[in-house]
Amino acid sequence: MSIPGYSYKFDHKHLLSIEDLSRLDIEHILDLSEEFAEATRAGRRPEPHLKDMTVINLFFENSTRTMSSFEIAARRLGADVVAMPIAQSSVKKGETLIDTAMTLNAMSPDAIVIRHSASGGVKLLSRKVDCAVINAGDGTHQHPTQGLLDTLTIRRTKGRVEGLKVTICGDILHSRVARSTTLALHLLGAEVTLCGPATLLPTGTEHWGAARTTHNFDDAIEGADVIMMLRLQMERMNGAYLPSQREYFRNFGLTRERLARAASDAIVMHPGPMNRGIEIESAIADGDRSVITQQVEMGVAVREAVLKLLAGRRV
Amino acid sequence: MSIPGYSYKFDHKHLLSIEDLSRLDIEHILDLSEEFAEATRAGRRPEPHLKDMTVINLFFENSTRTMSSFEIAARRLGADVVAMPIAQSSVKKGETLIDTAMTLNAMSPDAIVIRHSASGGVKLLSRKVDCAVINAGDGTHQHPTQGLLDTLTIRRTKGRVEGLKVTICGDILHSRVARSTTLALHLLGAEVTLCGPATLLPTGTEHWGAARTTHNFDDAIEGADVIMMLRLQMERMNGAYLPSQREYFRNFGLTRERLARAASDAIVMHPGPMNRGIEIESAIADGDRSVITQQVEMGVAVREAVLKLLAGRRV
Amino acid sequence: MSIPGYSYKFDHKHLLSIEDLSRLDIEHILDLSEEFAEATRAGRRPEPHLKDMTVINLFFENSTRTMSSFEIAARRLGADVVAMPIAQSSVKKGETLIDTAMTLNAMSPDAIVIRHSASGGVKLLSRKVDCAVINAGDGTHQHPTQGLLDTLTIRRTKGRVEGLKVTICGDILHSRVARSTTLALHLLGAEVTLCGPATLLPTGTEHWGAARTTHNFDDAIEGADVIMMLRLQMERMNGAYLPSQREYFRNFGLTRERLARAASDAIVMHPGPMNRGIEIESAIADGDRSVITQQVEMGVAVREAVLKLLAGRRV
Repeated sequence: MSIPGYSYKFDHKHLLSIEDLSRLDIEHILDLSEEFAEATRAGRRPEPHLKDMTVINLFFENSTRTMSSFEIAARRLGADVVAMPIAQSSVKKGETLIDTAMTLNAMSPDAIVIRHSASGGVKLLSRKVDCAVINAGDGTHQHPTQGLLDTLTIRRTKGRVEGLKVTICGDILHSRVARSTTLALHLLGAEVTLCGPATLLPTGTEHWGAARTTHNFDDAIEGADVIMMLRLQMERMNGAYLPSQREYFRNFGLTRERLARAASDAIVMHPGPMNRGIEIESAIADGDRSVITQQVEMGVAVREAVLKLLAGRRV
Repeated sequence: MSIPGYSYKFDHKHLLSIEDLSRLDIEHILDLSEEFAEATRAGRRPEPHLKDMTVINLFFENSTRTMSSFEIAARRLGADVVAMPIAQSSVKKGETLIDTAMTLNAMSPDAIVIRHSASGGVKLLSRKVDCAVINAGDGTHQHPTQGLLDTLTIRRTKGRVEGLKVTICGDILHSRVARSTTLALHLLGAEVTLCGPATLLPTGTEHWGAARTTHNFDDAIEGADVIMMLRLQMERMNGAYLPSQREYFRNFGLTRERLARAASDAIVMHPGPMNRGIEIESAIADGDRSVITQQVEMGVAVREAVLKLLAGRRV
Repeated sequence: MSIPGYSYKFDHKHLLSIEDLSRLDIEHILDLSEEFAEATRAGRRPEPHLKDMTVINLFFENSTRTMSSFEIAARRLGADVVAMPIAQSSVKKGETLIDTAMTLNAMSPDAIVIRHSASGGVKLLSRKVDCAVINAGDGTHQHPTQGLLDTLTIRRTKGRVEGLKVTICGDILHSRVARSTTLALHLLGAEVTLCGPATLLPTGTEHWGAARTTHNFDDAIEGADVIMMLRLQMERMNGAYLPSQREYFRNFGLTRERLARAASDAIVMHPGPMNRGIEIESAIADGDRSVITQQVEMGVAVREAVLKLLAGRRV
């Protein structure tokens, strides 16, 4: 994407939302991520870009998977990582998010990675600190590194993103993953279909760049190049959005029969952790179309790239 | 404070209580802390004084804030830090504190930072181990690094400690902070007034070096150079010490009207986490008199100094 | 044990069970462990054999003690350690152990240390990953590094293992320690007696290499060179295996009277944490026959040796 006479510069202080990024930003992050991924595959450690830096992992929601991914990424770059999983009990102590932000800021970290249950909570915090802030998931709003790693996994396995037909299926309404990934894929020229039960399909998804929404999965999967199944977030649902797990699987589960409707070289994705037998058949999760573990691998690489671009700026 | 012909040497194995320190000890720690604070402000890492050393953070009480401060301090000096937050569930396993001490000692750490709910628990443990022990809070007894960081914050912002009028207000009875800070400030020549509800004012505070105690906050704040508000430790109180939060705020909350009675350049402190609207008005916490985030910053610096002086000895 | 013309090579990918090791393997690990133990005693750090490597500590059961021992061992060798204590709440999210394994593997660690409540769970996981897997306890099955550290402690204090009479007393049925330690000691030529209440003595212990089982502790301790008391695992027992703690102590507690029946230079061991007054008298735990803290010390050394032999292979 380099344009003669134009010199690109990644110029963001924080990573709060895919909405803040341009197509060039995303491609720059993906290119850098690929370098990190190749280094890891070759058994090489990258340069210690974050040597003598401190990264704080502030997680108000439990997520061993995402927290570890950030921790491993930061350490590979030579950073000190301070894990701060905040149990419900501590929150009960009654300190506000702003006070937590100001307290952490006073400890002079170079980056804070934060997951919070309130949509917008991470942005709020970012205004009160001097260091780089990376959104690791805020409520049902954004999870930008997930959007980036999904896009990278697709680009690597399909060779491009432009023009691909991508179907995302599941609880779209509560999914920060669907939002972030749709935004990123749309920016890079994919055609995204969002599919789920009518009760779990929000309106306004055209603002994310979605081409269409549907509650007919058989229809949505027709000819798709990429199928991304979302986790059925049972803990997110307060009311009775769904009749039964069995009913859900019948209508929205990814089975081999259904997969046959997609393109013959379609790939299958899932952000994990999976509910096998609920949203995806085990044979598909473990089959040769699945790139699910590659998503995890790219997750570490993307976080290395983002940490380098943001925390590394302070040097 | 260097006296011709006299060569000072910091000569302590542990940091258990401010009571064990002389004025020269405190001034030595504060001087060293300032060097660390300046290094951090300038974006410099200090020498790795604790390289190849292991610091264990043994916290029997939940305190993300203090634990992180010690962790960041130890890592800045190059130490390995092993976090050991001991959940209630583990304590139920029934191992005695002495056995825990002996077990940890057998793993050959260079320093153990410990917080325990029993007053005196840290001292007990220190007798059973070979390495340096730092008290990060034991029951209602001591929290010496808090006393040091409070003193340092005052010395930096007011230019001196000697002769200052300091008012500490809140739940004095249950506060290890009040005790440690009063002792440190008194040693350095400040005049400390302790203020709180009659039910939360212990007797014998003259042994801490307090000049007086009172339950009249309006009176106590008159002409004060420093006002330190304590957190209302609701979880500490077993009985009915207080009528209501509203009543408490009316009598002992720091409001703008009350602050006007203090010296015109008085500073406001709080060890955190704050209960905004209960012991302190939000506008003051965020106002230009507040040095609350500077306390957090000095906290890391003081812990660097203490770790260097104690753990560094084993080299 | 070097045989002319024979060149020994430690050739294992994982450490899952003592059953997978030969006598030469064990002696090789113990020899290397001794070197690490001596280095620590001399205040020396070993070579950073695991520099730029990542060790994941995946603990599905709470064990501050074992987790810290592995963490300290790995850090001494220069590794990055990512702690993953998996709370019950996370497991409820419903991811299978296999998915967890594949997720972690995709993050490219060099070793995974795992404790899991299911016997065989660690082996299952090891089949799905590329890196070294170390069993830190799986159900009632194996805890191989405990077997090795027990054997090393005996070899150091008694000068040999061959021909020693070792009595292990307690809840043999639920003890992965008893199984691993018996296997290791038998391989090295000790004669192991297993003792406990009839309800807690499994059949088939001859397959572990035990010489005999008995529910008469007075008889079992007669002339023993080593007495190892097991922790009464109250949380392990679902039913009514035992009449009362008092009754247990009378029949199976280690008292000074009972210890007098053992060899005059007998040593006393316990894997910890101890229930003082239930399985062992306090005076013995703290007495000069006790090598309990030395077990902890050797634990770190053995884990350094095992991590070096396994994770170090990838270089």
